[in-house]
Amino acid sequence: MPFPWGLCLMHRSWARPLRGTAPLLGSPARRLTLSAPRRISDFNSFVVRTNTCGELRSSHLGQDVTLCGWIQYRRQSLFLILRDFHGLIQVVIPQDESATSVKKVLCEAPIESVVQVTGTVISRPPGQENPKMPTGEIEIKVKTAELLNPCKKLPFEIKDFIKKTEALRMKYRYLDLRSSQMQYNLRLRSQIVMKMREYLCNLHGFVDIETPTLFKKTPGGAKEFVVPSREPGKFYSLPQSPQQFKQLLMVGGFDRYFQIARCYRDEGSKPERQPEFTQIVDVSDVFRNAEIEFLQDVLKEPQGTIKAICIPGGAKYLRSKDFETIKQFAVDHFNQEVSPVFLKTSGSGKSPLTKLLKEEEKSTLIRLMRVQEEDMLLLAAGEHKKVCSVLGKLRLECADLLEARGVELRDPALFHFLWVVEFPLFLPKEEDPTELESAHHPFTAPHPNDGHLLYTEPEKVRSQHYDLVLNGSEIGGGSIRIHNAEQQQYVLETVLKEDVKMLSHLLQALDFGAPPHGGIALGLDRLVCLITGAPSIRDVIAFPKSFRGHDLMSNAPDYMSPEEIEPYHIQVKSPEVTDRKDVKSVISETESSQELVFPSLAKAENP
Amino acid sequence: MPFPWGLCLMHRSWARPLRGTAPLLGSPARRLTLSAPRRISDFNSFVVRTNTCGELRSSHLGQDVTLCGWIQYRRQSLFLILRDFHGLIQVVIPQDESATSVKKVLCEAPIESVVQVTGTVISRPPGQENPKMPTGEIEIKVKTAELLNPCKKLPFEIKDFIKKTEALRMKYRYLDLRSSQMQYNLRLRSQIVMKMREYLCNLHGFVDIETPTLFKKTPGGAKEFVVPSREPGKFYSLPQSPQQFKQLLMVGGFDRYFQIARCYRDEGSKPERQPEFTQIVDVSDVFRNAEIEFLQDVLKEPQGTIKAICIPGGAKYLRSKDFETIKQFAVDHFNQEVSPVFLKTSGSGKSPLTKLLKEEEKSTLIRLMRVQEEDMLLLAAGEHKKVCSVLGKLRLECADLLEARGVELRDPALFHFLWVVEFPLFLPKEEDPTELESAHHPFTAPHPNDGHLLYTEPEKVRSQHYDLVLNGSEIGGGSIRIHNAEQQQYVLETVLKEDVKMLSHLLQALDFGAPPHGGIALGLDRLVCLITGAPSIRDVIAFPKSFRGHDLMSNAPDYMSPEEIEPYHIQVKSPEVTDRKDVKSVISETESSQELVFPSLAKAENP
Repeated sequence: MPFPWGLCLMHRSWARPLRGTAPLLGSPARRLTLSAPRRISDFNSFVVRTNTCGELRSSHLGQDVTLCGWIQYRRQSLFLILRDFHGLIQVVIPQDESATSVKKVLCEAPIESVVQVTGTVISRPPGQENPKMPTGEIEIKVKTAELLNPCKKLPFEIKDFIKKTEALRMKYRYLDLRSSQMQYNLRLRSQIVMKMREYLCNLHGFVDIETPTLFKKTPGGAKEFVVPSREPGKFYSLPQSPQQFKQLLMVGGFDRYFQIARCYRDEGSKPERQPEFTQIVDVSDVFRNAEIEFLQDVLKEPQGTIKAICIPGGAKYLRSKDFETIKQFAVDHFNQEVSPVFLKTSGSGKSPLTKLLKEEEKSTLIRLMRVQEEDMLLLAAGEHKKVCSVLGKLRLECADLLEARGVELRDPALFHFLWVVEFPLFLPKEEDPTELESAHHPFTAPHPNDGHLLYTEPEKVRSQHYDLVLNGSEIGGGSIRIHNAEQQQYVLETVLKEDVKMLSHLLQALDFGAPPHGGIALGLDRLVCLITGAPSIRDVIAFPKSFRGHDLMSNAPDYMSPEEIEPYHIQVKSPEVTDRKDVKSVISETESSQELVFPSLAKAENP
Repeated sequence: MPFPWGLCLMHRSWARPLRGTAPLLGSPARRLTLSAPRRISDFNSFVVRTNTCGELRSSHLGQDVTLCGWIQYRRQSLFLILRDFHGLIQVVIPQDESATSVKKVLCEAPIESVVQVTGTVISRPPGQENPKMPTGEIEIKVKTAELLNPCKKLPFEIKDFIKKTEALRMKYRYLDLRSSQMQYNLRLRSQIVMKMREYLCNLHGFVDIETPTLFKKTPGGAKEFVVPSREPGKFYSLPQSPQQFKQLLMVGGFDRYFQIARCYRDEGSKPERQPEFTQIVDVSDVFRNAEIEFLQDVLKEPQGTIKAICIPGGAKYLRSKDFETIKQFAVDHFNQEVSPVFLKTSGSGKSPLTKLLKEEEKSTLIRLMRVQEEDMLLLAAGEHKKVCSVLGKLRLECADLLEARGVELRDPALFHFLWVVEFPLFLPKEEDPTELESAHHPFTAPHPNDGHLLYTEPEKVRSQHYDLVLNGSEIGGGSIRIHNAEQQQYVLETVLKEDVKMLSHLLQALDFGAPPHGGIALGLDRLVCLITGAPSIRDVIAFPKSFRGHDLMSNAPDYMSPEEIEPYHIQVKSPEVTDRKDVKSVISETESSQELVFPSLAKAENP
């Protein structure tokens, strides 16, 4: 009996094809127009609204319409602005005797109540048109009105959510979501993801495959949430990424796979991470023979280096207190000295360091750094990694300072992409520099030209990892993977001293004809952030967690009774000391990232 | 510097737009053709393969091509069949002196090794064409060959995975995935989901929104996995569905939301659930005055009823041992007696019960049940719910039996949809029938016509829940939700005696202008199962868990050291007794379901 009784129960519904481009409220920093769905026939007999509030124009004059929406505001007892998420429309409250009941509904319903009105589209009286409002030429002459759901006193006004505190926004997220900015962000995000899918699936034959989120602990996978099972002592882990599964899918012959995957990371919250790489120029050789003691000391160290970046117009626009700020910042955040260097192209220059330089050294420096009039150099001498980090950070700090001084450096409407490549495959462990750890993860393949070094000088091997940067923010990264079991085992066992037992299934898989492959993962939240110009990823996620991993709306995580956790054979063990940092815990699950993996031909030498 | 250095590292890749329709191997029970992606320009300079194995035809004759794939098999040292997931191609192994190295590679590489060959497309010698093979008119004359990755001895042959044990398939899932059936299932699944997305997003303006999976325990949400946080004693839950979030999105004004959501359910494994409803006819009145004692006893009970189903042709095709099987089944699974009743339209009939019936009762029964010659009735007398369940199950059992006897009842190529509606809103608790529990969940709205009963006789209220059934299997369900805070609070507090504190955020949300709304959730795994004709949902999931919730490939869940769980302030508490059932635990996370919610106008009377 294939008769849709169920639908009969749904009877009248708001559901209806959109027409206009939505939304029409507010004006975000960076506004892209949302594409309107294609017009489709009104297949649905359960629809009650005949139009959306936002789509009505003069072309609808004289039409009888039924609209549903929220009461945005009321002007005296005469007008009422109705809102749905396609726009605003003005409704004229009838004043005549015969319509007292309708007037009562429309005048007494609190702001943000849900109402349904039926009436006629009429043109506004001459002079009362509102050109700022897409529906500003018309208004609705109401015949009937119905209060669908009243609204209690709001904790804040929907209109100006920007002024609200983060905590208040999170506690009443469902109200915050009504703001035009959040509506715009989440609707645009949905369309961006859809475009990605259409491109991958429809144009390039990628296969969308869901991989499990209840999995086994991954080596080095600290910061993975644990999920107790009903088997005493046994736990699942929530993986930080489908790392292993996507490789197993390659072995399984899904030659083009992608997924919008959840990534669970249990770690202290990072604000929008600043990229820690930069084009820096190594100027060690310039100072090799310079009679500057502290520089010489640095160069004697194994990892010692001297690097510099050029701040265009730095000499002209930055003030001495800026230099102090910069130097202090470097000391505070990196415990690293930096020296501003001023060099006129003439060769003259007034910074302390400049005085100590020979003419020849100055000119080399000017040439190397492509120094122009009124530029400024920032020079750092110290351990390689630290020097790179500090200069990378300072480069952005200086950009902010210069922009604060009115120098136009970055156009927020432009998208500048940058690939960062040739990362080292391994880095010395901080706790014990004689041992190595993966710069990214143990599955990254060595650079084809460095394969031989893997077995002699692993620390010198470059990786086939690549990062993608948009306007200075890292939005994704990926790598060509090791597809050779022996090489993978060598890296895990010999180089990294990892326990390979936990990865036996992966090593085994590589042995059964794994194709060469690689891929990339994009941080979707970050990407949408940059596209919408949102200040935080929390503005592009429907229900984000707080810095401390709390859901302020439902108050998760919450206490559970011993009975509730009993089936999982665990009990709570109250800690001796609860140190602040340890309590911190943020969930990056909402940092969903698009996983796409495709075979390539990264070569791998056998031992 | 927006220059794609990173890509340079990826150099030659297999990646390439597909052309043919894939896959061409195997022949699944129910084969739908996979749509081929639209042709796009070869944008990618890192591509190494010029074609896929499956797409070559006579039209390619004379072309030089580079192919990558797995060695499917080798005929003597003369031919080699290369496979990728777009098809098979025959490669001629060169025999001449000059090509010894190429011959060596192609002859010595083990089966399922990954190789790359370059050569010319030539036509097969007359008489050697293979019409069964889409590429059967041609073959490849090889110039160069390269072994990209050798394959060790396989635990089983890829070709015939059907014969393998479930456990073996799961342990080597990445090999199992190479089978044409799994490739077909997962590729089709991906396309089905994509079509759903295109329909919802592009045609109907639905917004795709991800909701958190680390959330707070939901009332009555037993069987939710718990996730310990770093705050002593505090836990997250993995929700069984985005239940609350989708409603909060409605309040937030996303008037058309959907999501392909993960559902986590920690419960004993159910094989493909059989629907427990059926069109049964209540025949209690027929027997009201019949002098049949055990029937009278039943009718005296409060929930007592007598129901029957008609098995067309049952009298003709089913044997007496079938009847025994059926009766035994009912007793074993439902502890319920059922009686076969044979009634000739003439009124005669030879079953024990028939003898006890008056002529008038027989004729009523024949009329009520629309009994035809050679039909058979199955009659069950007992508690209403139990009788419905047993007859619903037996209806399907009998269908299987009849089909086993060669009666054609169900065409697997046809899709029959059925809506099941007007469920009761509440059911008496099994443990205490004087108390009520939700038939589905506490957020379902009462039927508009029954609203008044909610406050007087809640047990009589019908719900606005609806289930969707495809070919006898439940594939989804949904409901119009309560959008009125008072009504929701009344249901939770007064009717269900739930602790509303845990849902204060939802109740509050309903108070701030929640629009009337409803939705539906489809069980994607189940749906794809029915479309592909797969025997189990594990055949439409890339990495399923076993019945006991184990990942047999990686051996998850696994033990963790006290150190590893220490940050979560829990410790393992070994149980006194570990009873078998308690250990059972299956993960339905892979039962992703499509959540789509849209406002409707379900009315709700206030108290």
